[in-house]
Amino acid sequence: MSELKPLIVVAGVGNGSGTGGSTARLFAKNGYSVALIARGADSLKKITDEINSSEGDAAPFAIEAYNAANVSAVFVKIFEKFPAQTHTLRIALWNVAEGVFKNFLSITPEEVSTTFSSSVAPAFAFSREVILKFKENDIVDGTRGTLLFTGATASVRGNVLTSLFSAGKHAERALSQSLAKEFGRQNIHVVHAIIDGPILTDNQRNRNTKEWEKNEDIRLDPDAIALAYQYVVGQHRSAWTWELDLRPAHEKW
Amino acid sequence: MSELKPLIVVAGVGNGSGTGGSTARLFAKNGYSVALIARGADSLKKITDEINSSEGDAAPFAIEAYNAANVSAVFVKIFEKFPAQTHTLRIALWNVAEGVFKNFLSITPEEVSTTFSSSVAPAFAFSREVILKFKENDIVDGTRGTLLFTGATASVRGNVLTSLFSAGKHAERALSQSLAKEFGRQNIHVVHAIIDGPILTDNQRNRNTKEWEKNEDIRLDPDAIALAYQYVVGQHRSAWTWELDLRPAHEKW
Amino acid sequence: MSELKPLIVVAGVGNGSGTGGSTARLFAKNGYSVALIARGADSLKKITDEINSSEGDAAPFAIEAYNAANVSAVFVKIFEKFPAQTHTLRIALWNVAEGVFKNFLSITPEEVSTTFSSSVAPAFAFSREVILKFKENDIVDGTRGTLLFTGATASVRGNVLTSLFSAGKHAERALSQSLAKEFGRQNIHVVHAIIDGPILTDNQRNRNTKEWEKNEDIRLDPDAIALAYQYVVGQHRSAWTWELDLRPAHEKW
Amino acid sequence: MSELKPLIVVAGVGNGSGTGGSTARLFAKNGYSVALIARGADSLKKITDEINSSEGDAAPFAIEAYNAANVSAVFVKIFEKFPAQTHTLRIALWNVAEGVFKNFLSITPEEVSTTFSSSVAPAFAFSREVILKFKENDIVDGTRGTLLFTGATASVRGNVLTSLFSAGKHAERALSQSLAKEFGRQNIHVVHAIIDGPILTDNQRNRNTKEWEKNEDIRLDPDAIALAYQYVVGQHRSAWTWELDLRPAHEKW
Repeated sequence: MSELKPLIVVAGVGNGSGTGGSTARLFAKNGYSVALIARGADSLKKITDEINSSEGDAAPFAIEAYNAANVSAVFVKIFEKFPAQTHTLRIALWNVAEGVFKNFLSITPEEVSTTFSSSVAPAFAFSREVILKFKENDIVDGTRGTLLFTGATASVRGNVLTSLFSAGKHAERALSQSLAKEFGRQNIHVVHAIIDGPILTDNQRNRNTKEWEKNEDIRLDPDAIALAYQYVVGQHRSAWTWELDLRPAHEKW
Repeated sequence: MSELKPLIVVAGVGNGSGTGGSTARLFAKNGYSVALIARGADSLKKITDEINSSEGDAAPFAIEAYNAANVSAVFVKIFEKFPAQTHTLRIALWNVAEGVFKNFLSITPEEVSTTFSSSVAPAFAFSREVILKFKENDIVDGTRGTLLFTGATASVRGNVLTSLFSAGKHAERALSQSLAKEFGRQNIHVVHAIIDGPILTDNQRNRNTKEWEKNEDIRLDPDAIALAYQYVVGQHRSAWTWELDLRPAHEKW
Repeated sequence: MSELKPLIVVAGVGNGSGTGGSTARLFAKNGYSVALIARGADSLKKITDEINSSEGDAAPFAIEAYNAANVSAVFVKIFEKFPAQTHTLRIALWNVAEGVFKNFLSITPEEVSTTFSSSVAPAFAFSREVILKFKENDIVDGTRGTLLFTGATASVRGNVLTSLFSAGKHAERALSQSLAKEFGRQNIHVVHAIIDGPILTDNQRNRNTKEWEKNEDIRLDPDAIALAYQYVVGQHRSAWTWELDLRPAHEKW
Repeated sequence: MSELKPLIVVAGVGNGSGTGGSTARLFAKNGYSVALIARGADSLKKITDEINSSEGDAAPFAIEAYNAANVSAVFVKIFEKFPAQTHTLRIALWNVAEGVFKNFLSITPEEVSTTFSSSVAPAFAFSREVILKFKENDIVDGTRGTLLFTGATASVRGNVLTSLFSAGKHAERALSQSLAKEFGRQNIHVVHAIIDGPILTDNQRNRNTKEWEKNEDIRLDPDAIALAYQYVVGQHRSAWTWELDLRPAHEKW
């Protein structure tokens, strides 16, 4: 093990300004090689270059769309680039959020179908590839590996505009809980984080005011979410967290 | 309104020995016309005949498989048989449970895909048809109509063998909660029942002992579930239930 | 058994205009003798007279304050008035809500102490007396008796003004769940109702507008809550509810 | 601020072998002065000496029993020993667990009363003293201070032997949630940890086998719980956790 480099796979990197990007940067700094999955090669290039130019080791894995087949296929490429001879998969983050926020009657059957085929089904495929790989790992510091899910308020509560979004997020939460129970006894750690507030991403920056952007009491910093992931990854085997919530200090909830 | 006959649509009748069948029989007795949806015409024939031979008014609507398109299409046929000139849709029950109980790594991508396309997606389609119809209704006794979901233990808890089943049931629960919040203010009542124990169906009868079959303290009688649905359908507008659990008196939970 | 009259004990009758009063009236009409517990003899007289003048059989049991000792003591008087020779305790409703709604720092140590000694502790005492009595009962229609708790939104969620109130209500909910699990297998049915909205009581009437009073979509009618209790009391042993929520059709939640 | 030493108050130190002791040791090492509250001066002496002999700064505050008055009174002594001129209270841990595990009918009224007066009521008193003090603090790194609660499985689920214990733990959880919501916007951070498994304390050591003691996959190490507290104390203001669960890797749940 000592000569192998640890690898983290992050799915849902987007343009690198959110949770996926922050997590990738943090673990790159911690000595992990980083496999970055996102739709579109362009945005991936930027964060890959950024990490590699700061002595990190990142590689981009663009996919055309999130679906089960693409997600499974991308792992073949990831393990070609980071083979077992040099790397061990230690962390995987499922950070994909396919959000449709609409009144129920405005939602089309296509959107329903797409939401599940592009969020829940690939979450299953992602989990499968990750857990199969983790099972080959030795137990190091109590764990064979950590599988992280980024959840949302909608993971635990349906609401007027979230019939579809919350259905998908509830499904992923159920998946993560089932996996935590099934694979905990094999020392595979599964974690679900409920992000209960707006995250400071480029998207949110554009939608909100400068004041919002600067006020750390009212929006989540993706770097702070990454620190939460760093903490749970490092938890002692005797005290593992399955679920934690994260929200800004001033959030009303 | 007074001359129109109330209609209940039940999806997930199976062979008529479970919750769907009991609910159909009970509301038929209460004067509702009944539209029965199940896979396979054979089993539907039996319960349809049974209801019609006891002065009920039931019609079978067999579909080849549960999916969004089939479920939407079947409503066209239902409203041809029970048109607005003679009938008003008042109750709809989504009672479809696509259960795959397997260790996570034994679940195939096809099963994941099928579970969502044959349970969650048609639940959205079913809800859509029902709510569009309800919105045309007058408010009678405080409601335009009641949309019922049969849930399960897995609706609120993932477990070792339920990564897939609980994902689907969690998704339907989130859907039902979102709908309850969105359409309550339009006097459409949405209810989610958590069935927390084994139901006395033909399937379960074959799997269990005679003693199990006779012991009403340890398994659910589908007629008792139907009575729960009758109660929530009749609730006063000022005190509506979204969620209730149902389990045998001796159930360990 | 057939010659004995069923008895319901209702604690928390107040002035008779709320849930306790409605439940008492409903079960009196259903043939139950009714033992009414409240603070202050005056308000109890009115509802007792009302029930007795409509062919019901009610008796008032005023206590000076809710506490464990008073609640235990009042059962001695209740069973003197309604002895085992003529009556069987079949239903008991704990409907006491000691509400302090205040910012946390305004709450005095006395209020903390009083809240527990006047709500949670007597809920334990009430449950004890009721369950001891239920255990002597035969199983009739699947149950030896039903113990009902009136809960609130605060039973499942703490909030800015409810640090004390929700602490008490959470405690009673935990009690009810533990009792449901421990005594279900002895065919004693325990139910917890989450009242998630304002109830039309004399108090609320005075605080709100005429329009609020008349709008059944935005406030709970205590008679409707009583019907919920009637339903769960009559549930078949194979499908018992521990918890259900009740809210007006238009409630935002 | 820079010259003032940070102070942590830990209530529920017991004999120092559990969560309270581990937390005290960890923050002493991190440069905090430590005020230790427990029943009985003897056990406190041991851990106080231990911390002070490793360059820590700890002081014992024995109380005769946990109740609201004693807990409020002890803060006077604590702030005499660690006055505002030299120290700032930054962290407080409520780690008191009054556990009665009994069948419901074996629980005496005295035990009910004692459980609330010796766990929930002093938790309110403790929170009051802590929050009053925190409000005087400057915001440093996003927070005026962190108030930690050690919860248990029984905090979220009642069960056959926990009608009393879970009532108290539910009440404390409700308190912590209410405080998190009320004081988050004043940058006071409140955290509730659900300890979902047996902790390796002297008590548990004596009850279990050597193998149990050594197997870190099946019991919680209190040092690992302390690390969880260290993490949440250091969380960035934009991503605060209210609740997290902690359980051994192999725990069945």
